[in-house]
Amino acid sequence: MKIDDLLKSPSEWVKADGPNSKIVMSSRVRLARNIRDHPFPGWAKKVERQKLLDVIQPVVEALPEMADHFGDSMDNISAIHKQVLVERHLISREHAAKNVGSGVVISDRETISVMVNEEDHLRMQAIKSGLQLKTIFKIIDRVDTELEEHLDFAFSPKLGYLTACPTNVGTGMRGSAMLHLPGMVLSDQINQVVQAVNKLGLAVRGLYGEGTEALGNVFQVSNQTTLGEKEMEVVERLNKVVLQIVEHEENARITLLEKKPKLVYDQIGRAYGILTNAHTVSSKEALNLLSLVRMGVDLEIFPAMARATVDEMFILSQPAHVQRAAARKLTAEERDILRAELIRTQLATIPKPDLSHRPRGDGGRAEPE
Amino acid sequence: MKIDDLLKSPSEWVKADGPNSKIVMSSRVRLARNIRDHPFPGWAKKVERQKLLDVIQPVVEALPEMADHFGDSMDNISAIHKQVLVERHLISREHAAKNVGSGVVISDRETISVMVNEEDHLRMQAIKSGLQLKTIFKIIDRVDTELEEHLDFAFSPKLGYLTACPTNVGTGMRGSAMLHLPGMVLSDQINQVVQAVNKLGLAVRGLYGEGTEALGNVFQVSNQTTLGEKEMEVVERLNKVVLQIVEHEENARITLLEKKPKLVYDQIGRAYGILTNAHTVSSKEALNLLSLVRMGVDLEIFPAMARATVDEMFILSQPAHVQRAAARKLTAEERDILRAELIRTQLATIPKPDLSHRPRGDGGRAEPE
Repeated sequence: MKIDDLLKSPSEWVKADGPNSKIVMSSRVRLARNIRDHPFPGWAKKVERQKLLDVIQPVVEALPEMADHFGDSMDNISAIHKQVLVERHLISREHAAKNVGSGVVISDRETISVMVNEEDHLRMQAIKSGLQLKTIFKIIDRVDTELEEHLDFAFSPKLGYLTACPTNVGTGMRGSAMLHLPGMVLSDQINQVVQAVNKLGLAVRGLYGEGTEALGNVFQVSNQTTLGEKEMEVVERLNKVVLQIVEHEENARITLLEKKPKLVYDQIGRAYGILTNAHTVSSKEALNLLSLVRMGVDLEIFPAMARATVDEMFILSQPAHVQRAAARKLTAEERDILRAELIRTQLATIPKPDLSHRPRGDGGRAEPE
Repeated sequence: MKIDDLLKSPSEWVKADGPNSKIVMSSRVRLARNIRDHPFPGWAKKVERQKLLDVIQPVVEALPEMADHFGDSMDNISAIHKQVLVERHLISREHAAKNVGSGVVISDRETISVMVNEEDHLRMQAIKSGLQLKTIFKIIDRVDTELEEHLDFAFSPKLGYLTACPTNVGTGMRGSAMLHLPGMVLSDQINQVVQAVNKLGLAVRGLYGEGTEALGNVFQVSNQTTLGEKEMEVVERLNKVVLQIVEHEENARITLLEKKPKLVYDQIGRAYGILTNAHTVSSKEALNLLSLVRMGVDLEIFPAMARATVDEMFILSQPAHVQRAAARKLTAEERDILRAELIRTQLATIPKPDLSHRPRGDGGRAEPE
């Protein structure tokens, strides 16, 4: 399929229909693989990379999981489309900078994507809504097995899969969950949780991975180690920690609502009020306000169906998605204006907040005048 | 009438139906008068003040303009009611601190009010919506004439009316207009205008007079001098300057809309969005946001009938009015919560902003996805 066909609907994983999707926005597992006796992409010459791409790309495109797919060489994809793929978490920021000699294959519903010649010869991922790391691992494990029937992966009986960066040697696996934690941010508990998670050998990062800000109160939790542990053990450990964080977040929200109900309702109300009435909104402000509206869905101020709309806006309000919605090249200022318009239009489909859900601690009612 | 009957509906002057009420919220004229051969209130003993009050109060209450009125001694009025009268611009902050020996008489629609034993024996004012200084002067001039038939005012053929403070000697008259100038504030022209107006011998002050902030972009312009000029000349001069300020404000808005349309629409939209969705709002924030919604009415984003609602909220969102709306004593925090609720309820009667009024400079339209 063409890239425009791929991108015309939102990714399957933003449908917010997975288990625990109230707090866990998505789960992702990726595997790093390399072809035996060929230099890693960072060391290979352009000709070698191109040769290997010509071998790998058809194998990936022939997978049963890729019955309907988008696939191309990176030099055929426009800068704006590359950025859109980054914003959908389908390729890395590093891969978006690649051109001749690198490629990408993405399944119909965007659940599976494979980067060819990123840091490793193959980086394959599966991503789904909610907390379903085990299911996802099984999907990508199967893709891995199918590919291995046609490709000779670099593997050491002692170390496991060999990778360009030593931090990936072994399983080559990185599992991660994208968590929405406004309750812990609002109650200043987030740093404690990040430290505790780090001590368990897991990493906590921002919305777009390593070195990015936790915009919109979204945090990614992932495993750090790839050696000395079986894939399923790592996945199960990660799953367990994520469930604990979910519980902490739920408690933080309950406490907040008990102690400062009006603060919570006020912040959610203001966020909704601004997003439905502003005429210029930056992507950073959009994420932070959308986060509060998302918590409003969890608190039943907005109907449950609104969660998917908000999650879509998390992606659609990103710069390249906004740029793509315009017929022409936009300045940053024009983008902020169009973003505000897109969000207003989308949020207009959500019914007005249900203010009859009055939290306790309500400060007196108005006398009829 | 009882004070609760007086206060149950908003003052006539906030109906926003006077001439030029788009920019001129109200006009007011007050006269200071004293009884011959009696010490000014600040010098008089309590007994003397009480004696004079017993003479003046019945005369004022017998005026034909006061056919239906509220009148009482200040010690009979509760602290909260006094504050409500201040917020409605019917008595001064200084008069609210008075007790035995001082009184007030206010006409049915709150157009005319007379303070007895404030700084002078009598301070009488008329207030109306929009720019109608001449009409108002005639109203209060007639009250003055009627009172003079029964009371012997201290008058010097050389100086005119004698007053406690030399700045009022002569006409004892202070005319003022309350102007809503968000266009000049947003375009940083307000200081220039204030300086120019000062050079013309007029004073510019904040919403609640001398030494108060210009909250909600509301400024009071008044005459400084009371000597050497006839009342009608002062009124006409003040009227002329106000008309010039109105023209400046209109131009400032036109320029703003031409140069930064999205900024204007954004600020108005956000103000409306916050006020219709917030759960805690301070009185300062309320005034500043209401000011922007008021400008939205002028720009036809909201229907014209909304102007009176907004002007009412300017008064009803003040602390004592909010306190009065509750059945019990509120903390500042509870007041902010109730204020938010009152404003949400009131603004719900205004139709949603008409976003089809798109200003020029619109940054591209969304592609249907």
